[in-house]
Amino acid sequence: MISFKNDYSEIGHPNILALLQKYSHTQFNGYGLDVLSDSVKTTLKQWIQEDVDIHFLAGGTITNKVFISHVLRPYEAVISADTGHIYVHETGAIESTGHQIILIPNQDGKLTVQSIEETIQSYGDEHRVIPKLVYISNATETGTFYSKTELQHLYHYCQSKGLFLFIDGARLGVALAASGLSLHDMCVYSDAFYIGGTKNGAMLGEALVIKHGDLKRYVRHSIKQSGGLLAKGFLAAIQFEGLFQDDLFLSLGKHANTMAAQLSKGLLDLGIKPLYEVSTNQIFITLNTTTVESLLKNYTFEIWHNLGETQTIRLVTSWFTQPAMIEHLLNDLKKIL
Amino acid sequence: MISFKNDYSEIGHPNILALLQKYSHTQFNGYGLDVLSDSVKTTLKQWIQEDVDIHFLAGGTITNKVFISHVLRPYEAVISADTGHIYVHETGAIESTGHQIILIPNQDGKLTVQSIEETIQSYGDEHRVIPKLVYISNATETGTFYSKTELQHLYHYCQSKGLFLFIDGARLGVALAASGLSLHDMCVYSDAFYIGGTKNGAMLGEALVIKHGDLKRYVRHSIKQSGGLLAKGFLAAIQFEGLFQDDLFLSLGKHANTMAAQLSKGLLDLGIKPLYEVSTNQIFITLNTTTVESLLKNYTFEIWHNLGETQTIRLVTSWFTQPAMIEHLLNDLKKIL
Amino acid sequence: MISFKNDYSEIGHPNILALLQKYSHTQFNGYGLDVLSDSVKTTLKQWIQEDVDIHFLAGGTITNKVFISHVLRPYEAVISADTGHIYVHETGAIESTGHQIILIPNQDGKLTVQSIEETIQSYGDEHRVIPKLVYISNATETGTFYSKTELQHLYHYCQSKGLFLFIDGARLGVALAASGLSLHDMCVYSDAFYIGGTKNGAMLGEALVIKHGDLKRYVRHSIKQSGGLLAKGFLAAIQFEGLFQDDLFLSLGKHANTMAAQLSKGLLDLGIKPLYEVSTNQIFITLNTTTVESLLKNYTFEIWHNLGETQTIRLVTSWFTQPAMIEHLLNDLKKIL
Amino acid sequence: MISFKNDYSEIGHPNILALLQKYSHTQFNGYGLDVLSDSVKTTLKQWIQEDVDIHFLAGGTITNKVFISHVLRPYEAVISADTGHIYVHETGAIESTGHQIILIPNQDGKLTVQSIEETIQSYGDEHRVIPKLVYISNATETGTFYSKTELQHLYHYCQSKGLFLFIDGARLGVALAASGLSLHDMCVYSDAFYIGGTKNGAMLGEALVIKHGDLKRYVRHSIKQSGGLLAKGFLAAIQFEGLFQDDLFLSLGKHANTMAAQLSKGLLDLGIKPLYEVSTNQIFITLNTTTVESLLKNYTFEIWHNLGETQTIRLVTSWFTQPAMIEHLLNDLKKIL
Repeated sequence: MISFKNDYSEIGHPNILALLQKYSHTQFNGYGLDVLSDSVKTTLKQWIQEDVDIHFLAGGTITNKVFISHVLRPYEAVISADTGHIYVHETGAIESTGHQIILIPNQDGKLTVQSIEETIQSYGDEHRVIPKLVYISNATETGTFYSKTELQHLYHYCQSKGLFLFIDGARLGVALAASGLSLHDMCVYSDAFYIGGTKNGAMLGEALVIKHGDLKRYVRHSIKQSGGLLAKGFLAAIQFEGLFQDDLFLSLGKHANTMAAQLSKGLLDLGIKPLYEVSTNQIFITLNTTTVESLLKNYTFEIWHNLGETQTIRLVTSWFTQPAMIEHLLNDLKKIL
Repeated sequence: MISFKNDYSEIGHPNILALLQKYSHTQFNGYGLDVLSDSVKTTLKQWIQEDVDIHFLAGGTITNKVFISHVLRPYEAVISADTGHIYVHETGAIESTGHQIILIPNQDGKLTVQSIEETIQSYGDEHRVIPKLVYISNATETGTFYSKTELQHLYHYCQSKGLFLFIDGARLGVALAASGLSLHDMCVYSDAFYIGGTKNGAMLGEALVIKHGDLKRYVRHSIKQSGGLLAKGFLAAIQFEGLFQDDLFLSLGKHANTMAAQLSKGLLDLGIKPLYEVSTNQIFITLNTTTVESLLKNYTFEIWHNLGETQTIRLVTSWFTQPAMIEHLLNDLKKIL
Repeated sequence: MISFKNDYSEIGHPNILALLQKYSHTQFNGYGLDVLSDSVKTTLKQWIQEDVDIHFLAGGTITNKVFISHVLRPYEAVISADTGHIYVHETGAIESTGHQIILIPNQDGKLTVQSIEETIQSYGDEHRVIPKLVYISNATETGTFYSKTELQHLYHYCQSKGLFLFIDGARLGVALAASGLSLHDMCVYSDAFYIGGTKNGAMLGEALVIKHGDLKRYVRHSIKQSGGLLAKGFLAAIQFEGLFQDDLFLSLGKHANTMAAQLSKGLLDLGIKPLYEVSTNQIFITLNTTTVESLLKNYTFEIWHNLGETQTIRLVTSWFTQPAMIEHLLNDLKKIL
Repeated sequence: MISFKNDYSEIGHPNILALLQKYSHTQFNGYGLDVLSDSVKTTLKQWIQEDVDIHFLAGGTITNKVFISHVLRPYEAVISADTGHIYVHETGAIESTGHQIILIPNQDGKLTVQSIEETIQSYGDEHRVIPKLVYISNATETGTFYSKTELQHLYHYCQSKGLFLFIDGARLGVALAASGLSLHDMCVYSDAFYIGGTKNGAMLGEALVIKHGDLKRYVRHSIKQSGGLLAKGFLAAIQFEGLFQDDLFLSLGKHANTMAAQLSKGLLDLGIKPLYEVSTNQIFITLNTTTVESLLKNYTFEIWHNLGETQTIRLVTSWFTQPAMIEHLLNDLKKIL
């Protein structure tokens, strides 16, 4: 079986496993208060080039949940595209902390200034929540990414309206690789964002980066209350030490995108056109159900929509994907069709 | 520096690191829905010998938070000793899910049937919460453990009153080693408990074990909502594969206890009497502040209470503690005194 | 100034004020545990003709909040039209109790079986909330009402899917008057609903009616926890004693509808067509901003949408509205136009 | 039957009923945004003589719940005596908003600077909640009251520690009458407090008074989200118009205290000594169960503790209590004994 199910199907990149061996006889302080965590944060700050606070958490949902609930007062709400991970695939995690998500129809998986403006102008009195934070994903849930101009417009709009802008970077690696933007850019055009490790080669771990000074205090309290403060915080730090040696983080993102482009090209050659333009590492295609069933004998992938006679499936590439895997899949698909 | 700060200062046991290497080229399904997770759960069930559901989570606080909030209706409350980790050291995690903790004065870190009975008999009408779940820690926060008789009494009492009994097993390894009880016993005398990996050799991970049929449904929804569903669930499963080969879990607990007994004996020889009887791997002693300051040059440990001229400190042993470390500490202490 | 702002601009119907005088020297038990509350509930049950539990609460938002949060487990969600009061005008009250609202585009302010079915079929796994309760308003927020057939379809669909159906009856009086349905009908085709007093002549008070046996237990605990258990519960009971003597409740609803019909006809005669068909006591019209400003000198009403040169306003009639008030308004409007 | 069950057994004071008649043909704006609410707030501010915000709510529990949850960030906690209404008799209302209550053993129903200081000095790191608000009741749940000196000490301590001080004034009328303090004093020595109407002659209503500037913003949003924003806010305002004409509020408090003193004296004459010194309108006494049963034939009161052969009961006097009622009770008690 070859997996195109997601970008977190393997333990982690060999460099990271090597670091675990290297540190296997070292004693660290708990809860991220160790010298290695400090040192890795210093490294990240050199990439980011802004005065930020950094916290390592285990996964994306808890990072979104902790940060959004930390920022908002009880009567404040977060704005999200209707495709946003926090609304669609986190089992009400944000609402479980007491906050409404104000939904806006997505445009290619993204939010625009105009769509936000049209929505929030009707808010204001005490019978409605107060929009306070804009949540976007980069790369988005449909595989698109934000350009520098798009981020600039969103950020400046948010600043003009007293809104915070937060970027869910669960798939930031492929977004940076596709857009040519840097961690510094992410930081300049947001109040906070996170660097996704889990989906880009780490065993676990997301690095929450907070720039806005008002949002920095007591974050460790919020993390602990959520249950997200890792006893062995150094374990998460080791991941990012590995990912940011020799720019491995970006290399892995580029590799995943290259594999997706190769797969996408092969699919087009077979006459299969992806539903969304393939910019990063996710490809959505619709196949006959019998074709899908044949593929499932040798490959794993997500069935996104079951439409009866046809099915939309999602194919994901990653740092682990090899060209041979893609050739295999394309060849098998060719035989089936 | 030698650490007696806690039992989670190192990456993890060598056997577990070896397993990571073994599986480093394997692809798994996400979210714990992989064949390895299934297989490790089967192994654990053979130890437990009851019909249970098992879920792997990253740490103790999120396990407590997920399970307790999963069980309780909004107007129901959890009963805990006033030393209970959920009240003292989880930053209000339980209350953050909307539930009151009914506090009962501890007796050697433990709850008794009598203390619970005295408290809850005044509850009942709609102006008070409904006591519904009893939370105990084994080993306790003061290093004591529950005997079979104590657990039996508590469990039968809970059953007679319609209360659920939940055991926080963050330090279950040392408790089993000290009490001679088994995972099967834990399961027989509770409705649910968890097997703590993080403090007994694992890189991360607690195994939540649910016996009571009413509490099993939709637990994965609660875990996901909490942000606690690990994308790479197989990573937690690997920990428990390692811990339950050749009964490593119990061996590590025994080792920690042996080291604590050795340290405790050495302290008594120096005229230093621990505050609580040393049964497991935590030792609380009170020293002059100048002595504490001298020790801090070469050792790390928690200062539990700062009393001015004297300080109560906590020394923790673990699977990693070596006799030589204890000798070092005792010798240095001898020199200082 | 004459108010068309809402249907709760006056203290209450004279019959109710007379009852207050009548009972002014009586002592009652607190928290609704008094003989008068019992007796009024018996009266209501005679109207409803089903085996129900009844609770009196102060207002609509707290009734929605208490009941919905009482019914749902943490990972369960409520389905609502995107015009639903719980999403639009309750400041995130439902989300503040931890639950997601699954939004569905409204059709004339209403939900249909088809719209629900299309939405929930994509739900199921642990990454999404579980749809569990359908919330509808009758009369709706746009002034429409549900026919018997519509309610039947919704209720049977909900039963077939394991969903609860809850009717927000803040404006139930005008809905019953318009539809010809009875309290018994409301009860037969829902699991719970409430009878709105505040907007139909009462000083305050909604009567929450729960039919489904699984939802009846511990409701008083949920009410108390919400802060909604009135110390002087008998005060709310008195309101419903007044409203259900000689079918006053229905008479007042009919009167409000008659006044709205009269106003609507007058507006049409002036060439002003309401945005939605006028079925109950709410009329939405769009006027030039200068016209609106002129009217505001002698009348109060809500400005629903400020569109710059024009404004959509809402005119509400009630038990208190007199034909002369409507003549006044129409005459003034005629002069202005 | 004569009721000594509580101080909210009757509809309300005749002056208030008269005001309802007076305004019965007036139209008001909703949600407390009416001219009468404004005017009554101005009156209250003249009594308080400080720059405050005032909000009218229906009852005590929702006032506590709204204010405390409005003030606290998720990781912050409220400090309360273990007899505090918010812990004992509000069904976990505070915890339901996500906050821990830090419990301190009461001294005569009260908190002292020393007891707070001893508790909070162990707080600080991210594993514990942050104490942020001190909650006291005046009069207390055991019928005692705070002197000016006690309030001064508490308030200055709170200021020095960055804690807010909030006074639950559900029974403020009898506390002011007993202590000789004024509303101005309450305001000077706290950051916020509320004036209890329900237990001192009003039909319903508490007036929340907020002095500290940081706590004033968005309170109406919090009230609406809680479900506590009364549609007919003017109804609550009318209560306070009545209570603050000719200082009726204080007169009613004095009357209740006088009745309690008379009853207490009579009990002492019969050899029955109250458990706590009788300062305000609550008397706790212990009687033989047979005596209690005899009394229950003609009187209603709360049984506070059922001790088997004896029972502790609570007798409450109020604005409605007449000397003849007390004579009746004492005579009957004399006959029984």
